[in-house]
Amino acid sequence: MTEIRFRSDIDVELVDHLGGDHSIVRAARVSSGTAGTPEKDRGLLNMLARDRHGSPFESVVLQLKVECPIFTAREWFRHRVGSFSETSGRYKVLEPDFYVPSFNRPLRQVGKPGAYSFEKGDYKQVHVARAEHRRMANEAWDSYQFMLGQGIAREVARDALPLNLYTSFLWTVNLRAVMNFLSLRWAHEKSTVPTFPLYEIQQGAMQVEKHAAAVAPTAMEMFNAHGRVAP
Amino acid sequence: MTEIRFRSDIDVELVDHLGGDHSIVRAARVSSGTAGTPEKDRGLLNMLARDRHGSPFESVVLQLKVECPIFTAREWFRHRVGSFSETSGRYKVLEPDFYVPSFNRPLRQVGKPGAYSFEKGDYKQVHVARAEHRRMANEAWDSYQFMLGQGIAREVARDALPLNLYTSFLWTVNLRAVMNFLSLRWAHEKSTVPTFPLYEIQQGAMQVEKHAAAVAPTAMEMFNAHGRVAP
Amino acid sequence: MTEIRFRSDIDVELVDHLGGDHSIVRAARVSSGTAGTPEKDRGLLNMLARDRHGSPFESVVLQLKVECPIFTAREWFRHRVGSFSETSGRYKVLEPDFYVPSFNRPLRQVGKPGAYSFEKGDYKQVHVARAEHRRMANEAWDSYQFMLGQGIAREVARDALPLNLYTSFLWTVNLRAVMNFLSLRWAHEKSTVPTFPLYEIQQGAMQVEKHAAAVAPTAMEMFNAHGRVAP
Amino acid sequence: MTEIRFRSDIDVELVDHLGGDHSIVRAARVSSGTAGTPEKDRGLLNMLARDRHGSPFESVVLQLKVECPIFTAREWFRHRVGSFSETSGRYKVLEPDFYVPSFNRPLRQVGKPGAYSFEKGDYKQVHVARAEHRRMANEAWDSYQFMLGQGIAREVARDALPLNLYTSFLWTVNLRAVMNFLSLRWAHEKSTVPTFPLYEIQQGAMQVEKHAAAVAPTAMEMFNAHGRVAP
Repeated sequence: MTEIRFRSDIDVELVDHLGGDHSIVRAARVSSGTAGTPEKDRGLLNMLARDRHGSPFESVVLQLKVECPIFTAREWFRHRVGSFSETSGRYKVLEPDFYVPSFNRPLRQVGKPGAYSFEKGDYKQVHVARAEHRRMANEAWDSYQFMLGQGIAREVARDALPLNLYTSFLWTVNLRAVMNFLSLRWAHEKSTVPTFPLYEIQQGAMQVEKHAAAVAPTAMEMFNAHGRVAP
Repeated sequence: MTEIRFRSDIDVELVDHLGGDHSIVRAARVSSGTAGTPEKDRGLLNMLARDRHGSPFESVVLQLKVECPIFTAREWFRHRVGSFSETSGRYKVLEPDFYVPSFNRPLRQVGKPGAYSFEKGDYKQVHVARAEHRRMANEAWDSYQFMLGQGIAREVARDALPLNLYTSFLWTVNLRAVMNFLSLRWAHEKSTVPTFPLYEIQQGAMQVEKHAAAVAPTAMEMFNAHGRVAP
Repeated sequence: MTEIRFRSDIDVELVDHLGGDHSIVRAARVSSGTAGTPEKDRGLLNMLARDRHGSPFESVVLQLKVECPIFTAREWFRHRVGSFSETSGRYKVLEPDFYVPSFNRPLRQVGKPGAYSFEKGDYKQVHVARAEHRRMANEAWDSYQFMLGQGIAREVARDALPLNLYTSFLWTVNLRAVMNFLSLRWAHEKSTVPTFPLYEIQQGAMQVEKHAAAVAPTAMEMFNAHGRVAP
Repeated sequence: MTEIRFRSDIDVELVDHLGGDHSIVRAARVSSGTAGTPEKDRGLLNMLARDRHGSPFESVVLQLKVECPIFTAREWFRHRVGSFSETSGRYKVLEPDFYVPSFNRPLRQVGKPGAYSFEKGDYKQVHVARAEHRRMANEAWDSYQFMLGQGIAREVARDALPLNLYTSFLWTVNLRAVMNFLSLRWAHEKSTVPTFPLYEIQQGAMQVEKHAAAVAPTAMEMFNAHGRVAP
């Protein structure tokens, strides 16, 4: 029998991609018909990001493999432009990976509705949060195994599992939609628009940005230069 | 303190809607420019459904309020054409409504991968499934309340809650996307295409169909007459 | 035989709608679970627009009938969130309505690529532009009629018609997508983001905004108060 | 000055792509967690197409460069799942490429509304159709050049150009959306669902299918084996 694993990471891996900075330039030049030099290409990417000509950024596509808790995936899947293939609790027996808040995860919400901020928990809060996440995961995993052992279908037995169970999915998404994701899911110092992302999805967004920057470095530089608003 | 409630229903309420059969007819006549009589309108709706002219069906919009367990909502939210506003575990303390399988819910998966069917559980399986759903819900709710009581943020405390917790959401969706939902989420005897929906989402789909038929009765009649394929 | 008509207007009519300010408030309160007063509702709409909580704005839907030249409709149809039903040149004989630039339509493009502005044409330019639009429309309409008279299919004969032919379509679209349309298609003094819309589509956008403001006045007020960025 | 060119082709070129059959298999196995052999992979692709498990087909992306007349592009752009970057008549002087129906293009529409079929034109009809397409293109091109010569902006001068002017665009689109395009835009003998595509877009669809089959041969084989319905 598989042993329970506790993790605090959000893991994002680049599986495949289509194109890069040159694809955006090529798409834009279909419209304008102009020829380019490296400097002109850079200027073009700058102008596209600055003046919100968004379509050419859709000509780059990333395919990412994500592992994260279900409560984080639930937010991720709200992004409708893009494709998801997720592990199914109907078709396979799930893996016992559970999320436990790390010592860095802020635990206290302070301030009034609409203007919350988060602060670190005190010693007891950290202890309680971590212990309860572990305890409930152990209990729920036993219940899941018990029901499976009784011949109850996977799709019914899994109902008892908690939201901190890890799931994994493949996300195929164009760069413009990635930028929209990053602008909403990372409260970045260069952002001109306020956002209040969940701590865990921001951990994921940081890795998504790293992969996007590897695939289309100049486009991502311009995204940052112009306030991190999706063009 | 609120008492835990156990439920087995999927609840779908019609909150608002735009248009009806006449909107589809009007949209189609923008294309063709022809005038109509009641019989011709009926024939037009028949032809549109039969020959898969889908766009005019997008001119009817339903707004539905849904209450269902999170594991069901997770499938519902995979439908990207449409809008969702869902209860947030970050912004409010959640309500202790939990799903427990009814006596009718099939519990045994039989057959091989790719060709499963479901059968009722025996006496013991029904007892175990219902008891475990209740037991884990009670445990998890206590854990949630305990963490909240320690000053831990709602968005962290809720991680321990199980997938059978109820959520509620508002779904604004056009009739063509509703038909696609129904064709995938209801294994209906009139369907020409195979589908293997989760029991709970099929319960929801049955209610969605009832509301759709109230808003656009002839369109839904033609959807059924032509094999329940979304046009 | 129908006589040729020359027009310079972009005509947008409100055919139907779903909801209004109250729908946005209701959708947002599904998330937060809080109760409201009129002042609180206003504050909520303000906060949603300011902090880019976009989903609730999707719970209002407009259905608009648009008449405009094909070159304008071509830009309009690039907006993928929303539904279109358009007059078909395959299924009906088209109407001889043609666009001619009004005396107010700027005719001269000045400045360098990426930073164009437009100025009014001089006497001769206005004369030439209007005369050529009329002349080519008359020629093309005669050719269309001639081919139809020879028994050539509508879908082939219409190829000869110019881009200033009017088309009409029904547009079913949620308020969030309307705001995105307005932010891109109207170079408004309150906009915080630059945009360089085609003159004719801006004429259309002005009318779309008027209808949106009639349906959801507070939401549109807040859209304007926060820089006309789609939330 | 550029000389007018008359063409009858629809040209589709594969510019780039992401993945292939293996990507679909990989995406499906994220859900099911099963391991594969070449025969099992083939069986999996067969099952996915047959039972309409559509999501995994979205993990393959094609990037195509298309050249076609504007009246054909107008239908192509109705497909909302996918990205377009098109030549702009606002930002560049257009090229004088015009469509003229080939001798094979059916010219006569016979039968009653809703049940049309097309037959070849007689000698005179072919002559008239081809001559009028050329004549109007020449006239319109002269008018366009004349207006440009008077200093009238490109975006105004181009209004006089006819719908048979060629345009070009880059289309970035996943394989599931390609299958939907093919099912609607090619009246194929293996199709189980009726469709009545425009002749010119069917010419384009044939080339799109060729490229899709090069990128994901088994997936496209299964698409054909199961009635050419998009899964």
